Amino acid sequence: MVELMKVSDVVAIIEEVAPPHTAMDWDNVGLQVGDADARCHGALVCLEVTPEVADEAARLGANLVVSHHPLIFRPLQAIRTDRPLGALLRRLLEDGTAVYAAHTNLDAAPEIGTAAALADVLGPGEFAPLIEGDEVGMGAVGKLYDALPLGALVGRIRRSLRPARVTVVGRTDRMVETLALMPGAGGDAVGPAAAAGADALVCGDLKHHDALDALAMGLTVIDATHYATERPVVAALVEHLRGHIPEDLSVRASEVNTDPFAGGEQG
Amino acid sequence: MVELMKVSDVVAIIEEVAPPHTAMDWDNVGLQVGDADARCHGALVCLEVTPEVADEAARLGANLVVSHHPLIFRPLQAIRTDRPLGALLRRLLEDGTAVYAAHTNLDAAPEIGTAAALADVLGPGEFAPLIEGDEVGMGAVGKLYDALPLGALVGRIRRSLRPARVTVVGRTDRMVETLALMPGAGGDAVGPAAAAGADALVCGDLKHHDALDALAMGLTVIDATHYATERPVVAALVEHLRGHIPEDLSVRASEVNTDPFAGGEQG
Amino acid sequence: MVELMKVSDVVAIIEEVAPPHTAMDWDNVGLQVGDADARCHGALVCLEVTPEVADEAARLGANLVVSHHPLIFRPLQAIRTDRPLGALLRRLLEDGTAVYAAHTNLDAAPEIGTAAALADVLGPGEFAPLIEGDEVGMGAVGKLYDALPLGALVGRIRRSLRPARVTVVGRTDRMVETLALMPGAGGDAVGPAAAAGADALVCGDLKHHDALDALAMGLTVIDATHYATERPVVAALVEHLRGHIPEDLSVRASEVNTDPFAGGEQG
Amino acid sequence: MVELMKVSDVVAIIEEVAPPHTAMDWDNVGLQVGDADARCHGALVCLEVTPEVADEAARLGANLVVSHHPLIFRPLQAIRTDRPLGALLRRLLEDGTAVYAAHTNLDAAPEIGTAAALADVLGPGEFAPLIEGDEVGMGAVGKLYDALPLGALVGRIRRSLRPARVTVVGRTDRMVETLALMPGAGGDAVGPAAAAGADALVCGDLKHHDALDALAMGLTVIDATHYATERPVVAALVEHLRGHIPEDLSVRASEVNTDPFAGGEQG
Amino acid sequence: MVELMKVSDVVAIIEEVAPPHTAMDWDNVGLQVGDADARCHGALVCLEVTPEVADEAARLGANLVVSHHPLIFRPLQAIRTDRPLGALLRRLLEDGTAVYAAHTNLDAAPEIGTAAALADVLGPGEFAPLIEGDEVGMGAVGKLYDALPLGALVGRIRRSLRPARVTVVGRTDRMVETLALMPGAGGDAVGPAAAAGADALVCGDLKHHDALDALAMGLTVIDATHYATERPVVAALVEHLRGHIPEDLSVRASEVNTDPFAGGEQG
Amino acid sequence: MVELMKVSDVVAIIEEVAPPHTAMDWDNVGLQVGDADARCHGALVCLEVTPEVADEAARLGANLVVSHHPLIFRPLQAIRTDRPLGALLRRLLEDGTAVYAAHTNLDAAPEIGTAAALADVLGPGEFAPLIEGDEVGMGAVGKLYDALPLGALVGRIRRSLRPARVTVVGRTDRMVETLALMPGAGGDAVGPAAAAGADALVCGDLKHHDALDALAMGLTVIDATHYATERPVVAALVEHLRGHIPEDLSVRASEVNTDPFAGGEQG
Repeated sequence: MVELMKVSDVVAIIEEVAPPHTAMDWDNVGLQVGDADARCHGALVCLEVTPEVADEAARLGANLVVSHHPLIFRPLQAIRTDRPLGALLRRLLEDGTAVYAAHTNLDAAPEIGTAAALADVLGPGEFAPLIEGDEVGMGAVGKLYDALPLGALVGRIRRSLRPARVTVVGRTDRMVETLALMPGAGGDAVGPAAAAGADALVCGDLKHHDALDALAMGLTVIDATHYATERPVVAALVEHLRGHIPEDLSVRASEVNTDPFAGGEQG
Repeated sequence: MVELMKVSDVVAIIEEVAPPHTAMDWDNVGLQVGDADARCHGALVCLEVTPEVADEAARLGANLVVSHHPLIFRPLQAIRTDRPLGALLRRLLEDGTAVYAAHTNLDAAPEIGTAAALADVLGPGEFAPLIEGDEVGMGAVGKLYDALPLGALVGRIRRSLRPARVTVVGRTDRMVETLALMPGAGGDAVGPAAAAGADALVCGDLKHHDALDALAMGLTVIDATHYATERPVVAALVEHLRGHIPEDLSVRASEVNTDPFAGGEQG
Repeated sequence: MVELMKVSDVVAIIEEVAPPHTAMDWDNVGLQVGDADARCHGALVCLEVTPEVADEAARLGANLVVSHHPLIFRPLQAIRTDRPLGALLRRLLEDGTAVYAAHTNLDAAPEIGTAAALADVLGPGEFAPLIEGDEVGMGAVGKLYDALPLGALVGRIRRSLRPARVTVVGRTDRMVETLALMPGAGGDAVGPAAAAGADALVCGDLKHHDALDALAMGLTVIDATHYATERPVVAALVEHLRGHIPEDLSVRASEVNTDPFAGGEQG
Repeated sequence: MVELMKVSDVVAIIEEVAPPHTAMDWDNVGLQVGDADARCHGALVCLEVTPEVADEAARLGANLVVSHHPLIFRPLQAIRTDRPLGALLRRLLEDGTAVYAAHTNLDAAPEIGTAAALADVLGPGEFAPLIEGDEVGMGAVGKLYDALPLGALVGRIRRSLRPARVTVVGRTDRMVETLALMPGAGGDAVGPAAAAGADALVCGDLKHHDALDALAMGLTVIDATHYATERPVVAALVEHLRGHIPEDLSVRASEVNTDPFAGGEQG
Repeated sequence: MVELMKVSDVVAIIEEVAPPHTAMDWDNVGLQVGDADARCHGALVCLEVTPEVADEAARLGANLVVSHHPLIFRPLQAIRTDRPLGALLRRLLEDGTAVYAAHTNLDAAPEIGTAAALADVLGPGEFAPLIEGDEVGMGAVGKLYDALPLGALVGRIRRSLRPARVTVVGRTDRMVETLALMPGAGGDAVGPAAAAGADALVCGDLKHHDALDALAMGLTVIDATHYATERPVVAALVEHLRGHIPEDLSVRASEVNTDPFAGGEQG
Repeated sequence: MVELMKVSDVVAIIEEVAPPHTAMDWDNVGLQVGDADARCHGALVCLEVTPEVADEAARLGANLVVSHHPLIFRPLQAIRTDRPLGALLRRLLEDGTAVYAAHTNLDAAPEIGTAAALADVLGPGEFAPLIEGDEVGMGAVGKLYDALPLGALVGRIRRSLRPARVTVVGRTDRMVETLALMPGAGGDAVGPAAAAGADALVCGDLKHHDALDALAMGLTVIDATHYATERPVVAALVEHLRGHIPEDLSVRASEVNTDPFAGGEQG
């Protein structure tokens, strides 16, 4: 009979490509809930751990949730079960569901990271980090193999990412030759993208003041939502895990849409 | 012949209701460009100083621009005229146009502030600060005189603020009895609004993670853009200045729409 | 039928005499585990939450543990159930046992605090704080009604506190007229006790360097263990709660001895 | 006639094996009192400079005291001779006795340090640092050549170190195969020792909360006092100096017992 | 027979007018060397403790030196007698000479401080602090009873302060009506003096960049040396002490000129 | 027709020998005013940008001023044209005059820096940095080829630097064999110069307390003013630029004397 992998074995496979020490100082990554020595009966990959994702894991018999966003982001001073986070933690502990977070270390991972996964969908085919770091960088910037009109890029984004909302700031009547990507919250990317000579930046969570800066700098920014720009990393991570794990251990991508903007009224 | 007021006299009228020491520590408020002792030939009130606003001031002969957002936010290490901010500063200096910023001290001003001005348009009629500060608070929360369905509130927002975009996160089939307001960037307001028992929060620049928190807390959030939620303060400030300044000194609200999301593609 | 009090009601009774804002900045006090709105079926008071105390609470049907030492002291970055604290947290959450901590705010409480409770046993009858704070102080110092030989004081300590170990540093052939108390970890109290003219200091966790300082300053220090010097506060808190809670709500002092030095080899 | 070595020459011999830059940032090491250029008429090695040690040095004609603990630990804002430290400093200056301190740099010294000297007495024969540092580490952990029952280890400690007091926390009915050492104040060593798989930790100054952690982690801790666990380094340093200094320069180990717990009542 | 005052009694007389808590955070004031409980056989007041001042104190039998500048300014990590400060400290300790420093608390003292003492000599007769502080201010600024030409002010300074050197920066052909004073190191006073409308500032240690600022602001600065501008406080403090001390206790002003610029080549 | 160099091309020539990353952390160097892409019509090198230097640049048609001291030293929170710096900035922007600052990076430049340029005039011929830095050092110290009496060194300084004022502190009847240089504000150099065994230190802006330290350490200090000791770097930089720039681009040394002590009364 085949011995199951331990939770820590699955974690080790992720950390080989996204080493925890490459996470930002302010971040909190690693095994956040559960028992590293437990046998892993299935892994569920998602962007965000919500009660619906906990349901899904229980339904699938997956006792390890791998999440991009940390469930415990600010260190906890209490586990108050009369509040949403405390209630979710109790539920996960009762279910025996472990939670592992790979956040800015996954963003920065050269082949499997959020920027790499988004570039795999939208281009550019070859890219450099948009923001240089000590060991790894963040985001991506590079030349597209074929320049395309901005409208065509927006169309490609709508088709492939299916974002709940797309917002374009800046000139729309331009060709995009150099493209910058910053999946997730991309405000800090406006300056670097302009400095790198990008024609357009694809990001999420674009704020008023960053949008004004982009206008002043002549950069076109496409906010395709935090969720949709990060979502490609889920499939990339699932594929990576499946390639390194015995077949009888199920690895699934969560089917829960955790985009808070998805259900609401838009426009 | 009547002597014109000096720039510093106009500033003093603003600072009586929005004292600079009530601004946040990280903020930069006050006279940012120009000569405090110059005669004021006209004042133009806006949310943001852009090249178009500088044009408008020059056209109107207004040599004092009163802005909500600081033109110089991070202290300057250089005035590089090959960059947008440096070019705008040179232009203002050449035109002899002074710039005065009232930012978080204006947010916090009890009668004329951004929260008070927004409440004047949307309600509630009576309110307390949403976030308490040492001397003054930020935002507003209170009971509406008549509870109304969330859809009706959204309708009122669309009619009165004319935002470029409205995003609703959370339950839309609810009555709003207690309403919280945080004009501008309102993510930090989600927790306080839920803690204050608000049914809905009107704000701008809502981010993915704050939206997720609101969903978890059962709070409905209406992001009506940074620009549109702050815009009512411009009229309030114009009115206040006109009430304290001789009639022959022109005080105007800028007609430039500085909302970066206004021109772009939405939805 | 009588409605049970809520956990938050019991907490409010404690916080009236030991307000959380009087805790030290580095401390973490308050409701640390559980649901503030749950009905309280019994309270168990202890110095320290250990697995044995969790057993005791379950056995007694007490779903609120009131502890002097915080179970969560450093904010948690993870709940690792393969580690002792994580395993205990899971167990408490599964049992539905809430944990409330009153630490340095209880130390500082004027009538019911750890210093006051120890003084009630050992004297002095009237005392001032040993270390002054902004609003409240720490420890106690005062004149005994009747001076007594140091040996007699040690005897009183052995009889009334039953410590696992007593260590005396400094002159033993002296009369004690002025007595200082610092229950728990008392090293920081050596300087203040000498400066206050104390003949002896009763404390716990006395370290080598603090002991050397005491010798140099001519102060006699009696280390009667962290546990035994703090233990009187448990009875004081039980009594206080019983005086403010309906009789049908059981309030008990834990009978678990959580002194780590109690079981081991000594001398 | 032979020229005597200077104080600075003796210092250089120590600093070759315990370089000052390897001391912790918060530490204060080096020549603390006296004249680096004076001729050295004899060196006295001790753990702690007390008035009795100053007497001993004067009696022996040793004008250099080499101490493990810094006499001046916190930088001095005043030399108050009405206080113990100021009186001792004046006395040393009047006697012309220099004081040199090698503290955390000596702890960390690979062959002659406090951990190495203790391991020489108790085992393990080969060891790694218990806590890794940038250049050097602290403490020691390794496998004993022959596992021995915990009781036998305690017996060895009593015979070879003659501590004023021994405290054992945790299981006593176990074999010790992997042994960790942290001479002096060892509370910080509990976590690393458990993580390194040690069966037992020998240290000093064990505090209540660290003892509780050890119990929770299943680690047995033997507190054999700060003084006795550090004392072996004195002989090691004397031997090292004698091996590098002309024979006519006397190097002695202090015979003063500076353990504050040695004289007092115990148990 | 009359009992002599203790060192601490003399200190208390000074601290009544120059409370230590009014000193700057970065300062180090108070009794710096010696025994607070010793009988005081004579006090010697000076600006700076040098070996020559120590000689003078020994010659006069004064066992308390009261100094404006702290002898120990940066806390000491060692007392190295092969360095000037260590040698002086040993000498003072051997002589039994105590040293007390009143520095920025004396600067700020309203009636007896360095600014007040200088104003007593040069004017203005009535003044406000030049730099406002929380409780006390620094420096002085006020209107002279009679405006005088700048040349006449320089003449008055030369006659009454006898500085080793006078440097004037800025216009010399002006009347001085409003005069600012900042004895000692006055660079930080340039901006406040200009803001207060002063025509001239008298200070010491004027640096290149502060002088350039003064030129740009149209302020005339007279650098009459650190020493000479502070020297009047010595007489003021002697007079104050004599008024509060029994006649048989000698209080003297040091006759040592500790101006480092006094002996050297100038011009 | 020859294309003119851009401002950024001239900057690159300077930064090759004085890389900006070698500047101190607290410093602000680089292009501070103007357009990096503008064609350079002439460069004017100076120590300090004053209104007179701006006049000179306009008169000469030089649209790039290269200054040693930063015009913008503390980052600007406002450009107040009613204040000297704001008025000067407006004037430079209106004239289209760019300003580039090379400050502590120029001090540290090994061949062309302020210390090297001063040593070229006064000696020593070969020298090491006086204060070691990570990559580069500050100041200079070395042996003169021929020792000379201090009076002769002062004479050489007067003839070659023509300082507005010379101040000598310490022994004047000595030979100078080892000479230390710290152009500009040299107080921090007293300790290092004494430690390096220098007989004399040439610097500027010598303050009272540093002068006292020098006296105590037996070091003779010659304060030859901030301006005069830094002035040689202007010629060195002009020469360097001329050697790397086409002949038709004029590079001039400013003829404005910006020494604030030059015009005033001395002695």
